[in-house]
Amino acid sequence: MTTEAKPTSRERLLEAAATLTYRDGVGIGVEALCKAAGVSKRSMYQLFESKDELLAASLKEGAASFVAGLLPPAGDGRSPRDRILHVFERVAAQAAEPGFQGCRYLAVQIELKDRSHPASRVARRIKRNLLTFFRTEAEQGGVSDPDLLARQLLLVFDGASARAGIGADNLKGLIAPTVVTLLEAAGLR
Amino acid sequence: MTTEAKPTSRERLLEAAATLTYRDGVGIGVEALCKAAGVSKRSMYQLFESKDELLAASLKEGAASFVAGLLPPAGDGRSPRDRILHVFERVAAQAAEPGFQGCRYLAVQIELKDRSHPASRVARRIKRNLLTFFRTEAEQGGVSDPDLLARQLLLVFDGASARAGIGADNLKGLIAPTVVTLLEAAGLR
Repeated sequence: MTTEAKPTSRERLLEAAATLTYRDGVGIGVEALCKAAGVSKRSMYQLFESKDELLAASLKEGAASFVAGLLPPAGDGRSPRDRILHVFERVAAQAAEPGFQGCRYLAVQIELKDRSHPASRVARRIKRNLLTFFRTEAEQGGVSDPDLLARQLLLVFDGASARAGIGADNLKGLIAPTVVTLLEAAGLR
Repeated sequence: MTTEAKPTSRERLLEAAATLTYRDGVGIGVEALCKAAGVSKRSMYQLFESKDELLAASLKEGAASFVAGLLPPAGDGRSPRDRILHVFERVAAQAAEPGFQGCRYLAVQIELKDRSHPASRVARRIKRNLLTFFRTEAEQGGVSDPDLLARQLLLVFDGASARAGIGADNLKGLIAPTVVTLLEAAGLR
């Protein structure tokens, strides 16, 4: 016997939306989502206004674990350079895991092709937080153009996850030298 | 009166597939494709085995203009460094055009999430040719690790087009300094 609370219909729908859209894309049908969650369509529409809203909510729900999986803990005493490199070590590690299909927040925006879609908005916001992390670290490190470095790092982040996600590059021996080169050119040693 | 040949059904289908999948994604229906091309479904299935095959053929058809729009002419007398930078100037220019949604060959692979799909195979092959271009130029430029530089450049290419395609970055002041930093670190001055 377990004392864990059984996941609610809402939680099961969020989980199904996260898993199935990541694996199959945003075109996944409501039927398939409800079936995977073991929830009736009627219940789904009582909990979420639309599939679009369910998708947006599932992305928002995943933001905390996205951040925890990538970013170093706040104030861990490491240098900005090491804290930035931590993120890219995590990307390389995630890319080596089975089922990796790249950054879900990039994929969703590419797939939806609609910047005003509620899920695109959520995805954009979450990635902007990553940009802010890079910018803050760059600033802490005394980089003269922290905006440029932050944009470069997010470009590398998205390029690397996308190329690994489609199986075009395994990132081995690629990501660390690329990031180090950009950090050093920015004066972050 | 014009002496231009009227496009055939096949040409109109290839054009519709290219335009609509780029704008709306690979989930676009056969009905919509046939309607845009002004071709009956019956005719479509006489010309192409499936929508998947039509999509793959339209990507293949677009490869020549993809290459012409990005790569410098062979043997134009410029240095490898300038020939590589040419590609990224073109990316920046394309990204500023209305309707830009990133590299179609990356998007299709991200959307399909199926590496054995005929369209994924075509897209992968076309991008591999771009990798080969970078590698050849790096080699010509006497770079000690041309493989690494080529992978870095394609990572920047995909990251930049993806981020511009979703409207997250306009690439202004970003792409040239990033590429120049990587070229210089590789010894390509």
